[in-house]
Amino acid sequence: MEPEEMEQLLQKILQDFRNTSSLHSGLNYDQIKSRLMPFTLDEPGGIDAVVKAIDAYLDTSVNTGHPGFLRAFWGPSEPASIVASLLTDVRNTTMHSFAVAPSATIIETEMIKAISDLAGFPGHGIFTTGGSNSNEMGFLCAREDALPGSSVNGLSGQNLRAFSSVEAHYSVDAAANMIGIGTDALIRIPCIDGKMDPQALNEAIIQEKQNGNLPFIILSTAGTTVRGSFDDLNAISEIAQKHGIWHHVDAAWGGAALFSNKHRNLLNGIEKADSFAFDAHKMIGSSMVCSAFLVHDESILSRTMSHTNRGDYLFDDPNKELSLGRISPQCGRRADALKLWFSWLEQGKKGLGERVNSCIDASKHLAHLVEEHPQLILVSFSFSNVCIRFTPHSNETIEQGNQRVRKVRNYLEDHAKCMVLDSILDNQLVIRFTASHPNVDKAATEEFLSNLIEANEKISL
Amino acid sequence: MEPEEMEQLLQKILQDFRNTSSLHSGLNYDQIKSRLMPFTLDEPGGIDAVVKAIDAYLDTSVNTGHPGFLRAFWGPSEPASIVASLLTDVRNTTMHSFAVAPSATIIETEMIKAISDLAGFPGHGIFTTGGSNSNEMGFLCAREDALPGSSVNGLSGQNLRAFSSVEAHYSVDAAANMIGIGTDALIRIPCIDGKMDPQALNEAIIQEKQNGNLPFIILSTAGTTVRGSFDDLNAISEIAQKHGIWHHVDAAWGGAALFSNKHRNLLNGIEKADSFAFDAHKMIGSSMVCSAFLVHDESILSRTMSHTNRGDYLFDDPNKELSLGRISPQCGRRADALKLWFSWLEQGKKGLGERVNSCIDASKHLAHLVEEHPQLILVSFSFSNVCIRFTPHSNETIEQGNQRVRKVRNYLEDHAKCMVLDSILDNQLVIRFTASHPNVDKAATEEFLSNLIEANEKISL
Repeated sequence: MEPEEMEQLLQKILQDFRNTSSLHSGLNYDQIKSRLMPFTLDEPGGIDAVVKAIDAYLDTSVNTGHPGFLRAFWGPSEPASIVASLLTDVRNTTMHSFAVAPSATIIETEMIKAISDLAGFPGHGIFTTGGSNSNEMGFLCAREDALPGSSVNGLSGQNLRAFSSVEAHYSVDAAANMIGIGTDALIRIPCIDGKMDPQALNEAIIQEKQNGNLPFIILSTAGTTVRGSFDDLNAISEIAQKHGIWHHVDAAWGGAALFSNKHRNLLNGIEKADSFAFDAHKMIGSSMVCSAFLVHDESILSRTMSHTNRGDYLFDDPNKELSLGRISPQCGRRADALKLWFSWLEQGKKGLGERVNSCIDASKHLAHLVEEHPQLILVSFSFSNVCIRFTPHSNETIEQGNQRVRKVRNYLEDHAKCMVLDSILDNQLVIRFTASHPNVDKAATEEFLSNLIEANEKISL
Repeated sequence: MEPEEMEQLLQKILQDFRNTSSLHSGLNYDQIKSRLMPFTLDEPGGIDAVVKAIDAYLDTSVNTGHPGFLRAFWGPSEPASIVASLLTDVRNTTMHSFAVAPSATIIETEMIKAISDLAGFPGHGIFTTGGSNSNEMGFLCAREDALPGSSVNGLSGQNLRAFSSVEAHYSVDAAANMIGIGTDALIRIPCIDGKMDPQALNEAIIQEKQNGNLPFIILSTAGTTVRGSFDDLNAISEIAQKHGIWHHVDAAWGGAALFSNKHRNLLNGIEKADSFAFDAHKMIGSSMVCSAFLVHDESILSRTMSHTNRGDYLFDDPNKELSLGRISPQCGRRADALKLWFSWLEQGKKGLGERVNSCIDASKHLAHLVEEHPQLILVSFSFSNVCIRFTPHSNETIEQGNQRVRKVRNYLEDHAKCMVLDSILDNQLVIRFTASHPNVDKAATEEFLSNLIEANEKISL
């Protein structure tokens, strides 16, 4: 492919970014599969094969920029992020050593400092491969903190115990699995209104100590997956300090509030934590993936990543202390920090904060409309998460109410009105709405509400 | 930023792809840092700030497409890969559920099958966040295989033991660290001519069993980092089967030979392994990152990733069995498989194989020239890796020879002639040359050789 041909293809793709396309194709697995064929060829298919593949992908993938895309914590990429991503691809490098990524290393280091500044952290950390990986990094640092040398010696039969709320993201289970303690070593603490109950947490830690186990990490959540709740970071830090346990905050979703003067208080106390996770690819709009792990103690990261001593020669001389590969679980890694840098430069902290405010305002507007509506019940509203259930018909059981939620959700998706998740909350299925991109504004919430009512009336139970 | 402005910026970046720019800026840390400033702004800097940032990044980052970029296993992104990456950014989604990534899920599944077909594998696996992560996945599956239920119950005090050669990549240590057994639980087996010694491996396994430890994984390397050696996969599979141990092959580098009819035999026996890692972002030219983990037994992945049951509602209904989040350690994840698909469609297996052949031919040409040259010693040549030392001056010690290698390397980099790594091999420093992108052709090897001789003559010791 010649550079000119490549540019034509890029233009073709960008047209899609400008046009309003439908939310999804409505095609099923087999239909999409045959539309996408072939997947491989022995003989070269040339540029024609790529053109067909672009068309097929655009026709069959979900348009995450559609105002009806409400399933998830992300939406379309910020234009600045798309620009940064192309720059990363064109100057294709990996983040492991300063020698091959000099400017990208500096940009990542400065972005870590900039996020840290917002949170009252000293400025240490690393970009990771996503929120799950950032939480895993918290677990790894906590493990090394509780059992110094365990990166080298292993767990040595110690029964470590981790604590998070029952509403924490499943990446907490992933971390417990991967670091070798197993998911059963994760104690799930009950919540009060979606927030981890500090007293129950304290009691669980005491109980585990009495059982001869070793509590080593509390993971708080700032912005839970379903409700968008924020744990009380001050109260939990106090408990962590009292017991001498690592406190990690999963702020992958709620960390966006760091940019907003209006909502920064949701994260009060984060400065007392030992580490936290933040995803710029959620409400901030960086394209997938742009995730950071921030840590208070600079030395713990290099201790935790001590295996990198085996790769010493890769990390270059004389600047090897500058090579981010020394504190990363990855060797090959994309220069993701550029995406956040470009958005920040363009929009400023002010602009990114307004983006956050506007998402929360839209959700607040919806929450208000739901409260007023006789067919709907507002189950919860926090951050930009709005959880909704339908007012039960007479004699309707909880199970029938659950079926109604599922049917409405499917109706909305099947008719390409919107894509929204249902989730279990207090043993009942709810519709979970989130606003996470600018296309989901107040008008979009009104459209969503009217679709919801239409679906509730049209479905047959 | 308006779509039109975004397109202008993308055009600006693409000009760099067409132009030949210098290998690196020659600027130091502080100079680059001040060139890149500012890193953040409170007030919006608008599009002008982004334009300046693009210029600064292009001026200060390494041009990996330069024929003198010889430090690493990758180079510039394939044009088809750049196109795929933009498409991924424009239709920004994550791979966790079929609902939000229907076509990307099918493409990833089919790419896994296509790579598997080349290796004689049945077609199961997942794209990961890089070669290190792919090797870690091998360790995780092996752990679950040796200790069924350990994903849930943890290591429970079992002393697991892993085995790799002394020349295996440091990601093996990373995996041992992260999964909880510690880097000391990794037994490094000596090599003969860069290949793991099967007899020594067999004896080490017996010894560890006698010590009461539990051998659970052998990691072979297909394309070592320094020499490019391929372990004898048939011999090692036999040992693994005899002892009932998981056999994982790190083919992150050498897996590219799967595409070449001429060099496929390097990977003979890979079909007998339990799992392997393959990076398309190395010799195949996908932009960072495009890495796959392939596994023989379909059921082991879901057992190993059993923590995902906690995230059940994310994985959509009715297609939840199709959601790749169920078998991935990540939740948010980019649609990396598109990059390999587009390159494969355009160039065919034939074209990608020729790319591999041409890299190996260039290295072979260099190896031949080195052998003939009185000032140089060919220490090793395998795959596309050529390791070189200088013919010692009279009375020159090994230490002085090492200093010469380091000084030559620095001279070449400081004068922007080329960037090449030095590495330790048999306790001596060598220059490690690799050809991994089409710009490193026979002419580039001749240029490299003449630079090497010039540097050797000009440096003062």
